[in-house]
Amino acid sequence: MEKIKQLQSEFADFIGKAEFVKDPVELYEPVAYTVMQHGKRLRPMLCLLACDMFGGNCDNAKYPALALETAHNFTLIHDDIMDQAPLRRGKETVYKKWNTNQAILSGDAAVFMAFDFATHTTKPVECLTLLTKVMRELCDGQQYGMNFETQQSVTVPEYLEMIRLKTAVLLATSLQMGAVVANADKEDQKNLYDFGIGIGLAFQLQDDILDCYSDVSVFGKVTGGDIVENKKTMMYLKALEMGSPAQRDRLTELFSGEISVNPQRKIDEVIAIYDDLLVKEEVERLMADFYRQAYAFLDAVKLPEERKIHLKRYAEQLLGRDK
Amino acid sequence: MEKIKQLQSEFADFIGKAEFVKDPVELYEPVAYTVMQHGKRLRPMLCLLACDMFGGNCDNAKYPALALETAHNFTLIHDDIMDQAPLRRGKETVYKKWNTNQAILSGDAAVFMAFDFATHTTKPVECLTLLTKVMRELCDGQQYGMNFETQQSVTVPEYLEMIRLKTAVLLATSLQMGAVVANADKEDQKNLYDFGIGIGLAFQLQDDILDCYSDVSVFGKVTGGDIVENKKTMMYLKALEMGSPAQRDRLTELFSGEISVNPQRKIDEVIAIYDDLLVKEEVERLMADFYRQAYAFLDAVKLPEERKIHLKRYAEQLLGRDK
Repeated sequence: MEKIKQLQSEFADFIGKAEFVKDPVELYEPVAYTVMQHGKRLRPMLCLLACDMFGGNCDNAKYPALALETAHNFTLIHDDIMDQAPLRRGKETVYKKWNTNQAILSGDAAVFMAFDFATHTTKPVECLTLLTKVMRELCDGQQYGMNFETQQSVTVPEYLEMIRLKTAVLLATSLQMGAVVANADKEDQKNLYDFGIGIGLAFQLQDDILDCYSDVSVFGKVTGGDIVENKKTMMYLKALEMGSPAQRDRLTELFSGEISVNPQRKIDEVIAIYDDLLVKEEVERLMADFYRQAYAFLDAVKLPEERKIHLKRYAEQLLGRDK
Repeated sequence: MEKIKQLQSEFADFIGKAEFVKDPVELYEPVAYTVMQHGKRLRPMLCLLACDMFGGNCDNAKYPALALETAHNFTLIHDDIMDQAPLRRGKETVYKKWNTNQAILSGDAAVFMAFDFATHTTKPVECLTLLTKVMRELCDGQQYGMNFETQQSVTVPEYLEMIRLKTAVLLATSLQMGAVVANADKEDQKNLYDFGIGIGLAFQLQDDILDCYSDVSVFGKVTGGDIVENKKTMMYLKALEMGSPAQRDRLTELFSGEISVNPQRKIDEVIAIYDDLLVKEEVERLMADFYRQAYAFLDAVKLPEERKIHLKRYAEQLLGRDK
């Protein structure tokens, strides 16, 4: 898709020219290190595609897009401390490469840069208000995620609310910010936001699946990481719903953190249970439901179909539905 | 002073009614714990006094004042992790009472609450812009402070720039925010800001003195804490400037972190050197200089003298000059 490639390339140029490093360099180098790592740049792309869809001038959306990317990277820097994650996108995390104090402070600096970037647009109040709201939701989501680690049982609706806050709202806000800059009306903004929520939930469920059925060379993360860390993902929760009493007991035991098992053996055993129960297929069905709901919201946006094609295509790529 | 007491009491009522705790409570309880600890509430008071001075409606400055207090508390929560400080205002710090992860995340939540509060006013863009700028400066200041710990030598100008960023700019911004809400013109805003910088520098130097010549019951901090932690404060830097070669060598050795000394003996020895050199008197002279410079900026504000009296009185109280 020409349009997608064009926006990606324009944003890559733009972010390459942004000044991330100034004095004190110790503070800003870890920010530049993280932002420049060429992640998917999903949030900026959603912002730019939304702006373009409503016929807005994408130049006005570049700083908001940069704000979203920088704010996202702030969450990565702090979350990696909390999760003690040594690697991210196949490279050392900030707290590991520098230290915890530096990661706390550089993360803080990153988010204030994001707030600064968000004012460089035609709609500064709206963008700052959206950014403030979503940053609080991300904290709420991270807290629920932390609570789940020690919480005895987590329900599927609780898990969905957690991933809504931790992942989906930032994607939804990215789309809304692009729409705001392009002067879309409130109803269209809302529909696009809800499209983002659906896509975000589907995207996180895909992540849950990929943790079990992918490997480090394609995915940049250690396969089975969620299993090793006893993360109660949708894979685990669905397996608990669908398993026999013996399988449920074994899963609960394996994820309790109270028994010592060789990590690879644990991964193999858990995935064998998932395979037996067809958990992957079940989570894929749930993903497809969110995907369908999301598209109903995009359909409701008051624009001709041909204007929606790029965003639609991008979301399809994202969710591996473009083959 | 009636006016000062009145604003303090009104703000105490206001902050008491603010909703700090919502779901997830694990996230917001540490924020409420910190904000409700009745610190001096210096930043809100400066904001309210500035608004009142320019004849503004102080009701419009209450949320900006709350934003400043909450943002300040965010810095305390994160700084206490970095400094491994067990106590603050005589109570356990957040990272100590909860844990590091909780302190990182609740600190993050606090600052996003602050950004939210800053929009609840008649001048949301201006307040948000000021808050964004000052938060980055606070990070810069904290970074310079961290750099000083490992930096072989720190100069007096470097130290002053660090405390300007770490302490003075937030006081100056608090004053400016009050002035903005009260529709003061740019020139008056700038003069009030510069008054705040001078007062802030003087205030930090007073803090440096009090660390050596105060005790935990009046000051809420362990006396000599800066000495035990090898902090290169103005007391230390001036002693290095003024000391004999032998005294300088001994101070450098004692603050190198490379020799093991009993903490109380170290404090006693360092303070004996300070006493011998009259370092306290020298830092007090420097304080008085900043105080005088600050007042010249306040004098330049285009308002009759009687309108400035409350702010003047408040700053005098703050710097112990009201006796």
